[in-house]
Amino acid sequence: MNAELTDQLAQLLRARTTAALGTLRAGAPFVSMVPYALAAGGFVVHVSALAAHTRDMLADARVSLMVAQAEDGATSPLGLMRVSVQGIAQQIPADAPELAALKAAYLARFPDAEPMFGFGDFSIFLIQPESARFVAGFGQAHSLTGASLLQLL
Amino acid sequence: MNAELTDQLAQLLRARTTAALGTLRAGAPFVSMVPYALAAGGFVVHVSALAAHTRDMLADARVSLMVAQAEDGATSPLGLMRVSVQGIAQQIPADAPELAALKAAYLARFPDAEPMFGFGDFSIFLIQPESARFVAGFGQAHSLTGASLLQLL
Repeated sequence: MNAELTDQLAQLLRARTTAALGTLRAGAPFVSMVPYALAAGGFVVHVSALAAHTRDMLADARVSLMVAQAEDGATSPLGLMRVSVQGIAQQIPADAPELAALKAAYLARFPDAEPMFGFGDFSIFLIQPESARFVAGFGQAHSLTGASLLQLL
Repeated sequence: MNAELTDQLAQLLRARTTAALGTLRAGAPFVSMVPYALAAGGFVVHVSALAAHTRDMLADARVSLMVAQAEDGATSPLGLMRVSVQGIAQQIPADAPELAALKAAYLARFPDAEPMFGFGDFSIFLIQPESARFVAGFGQAHSLTGASLLQLL
């Protein structure tokens, strides 16, 4: 991808705050909504052990995240920018040295989430991208490696 | 669910035009974006045989659709309404009697998509809901059967 496309993708990931998270549930796909933050190692999500998508990720770490430009009522929906990521979700233990930085990245984006860090059932997962497909507009699809995507986060 | 919640869910599905589509790709989840219309039998999507999610649905009909309220920059993201549907995607053959009604429902919502019905690689899929999970706001989750959801479409 050229520098203009790379910029568009980076801006999309910064402008949006929620992603569609695809997990495996009894072998079938399940899509839920998650707020996400960006960190050097991937996408940061903060989820409850009571939520089914958390159990899904613990049972099978293969996930997909999709982030799409806001619907604007004018653009044809197929012209909306979006990126689909496939990656691996890793639960970050409470004593992991990287936890502080990931928590800080999350709270910088979602300061209102601070109280949830006091709930024992919530934990941080880091989703490390393995590949991505960026659709910059109608018929404009580009594939990226996980490493290329990480450089934008 | 009470009548107020049912109305909220019906309004969400009418207000939004795109969904996150979860498919199985080599056994892992993959999430892409699809415009959708509503019909008596389920969710109507119009997809190209050249698109990977179409091949996914033909290989394994189990899919998930997630529709979320627009981010508004004010509401905490976990307060956004959203619904996750699990269902079965069925390609509608060109000679199927129900095709005309599904195409009409799709074009009523996306008149700009008319030219794509002239492309040989595009076809209509009907996604029949089997179950759904509606989150009406933070901590307000409700489960629905496919039959209950169909009554709202």
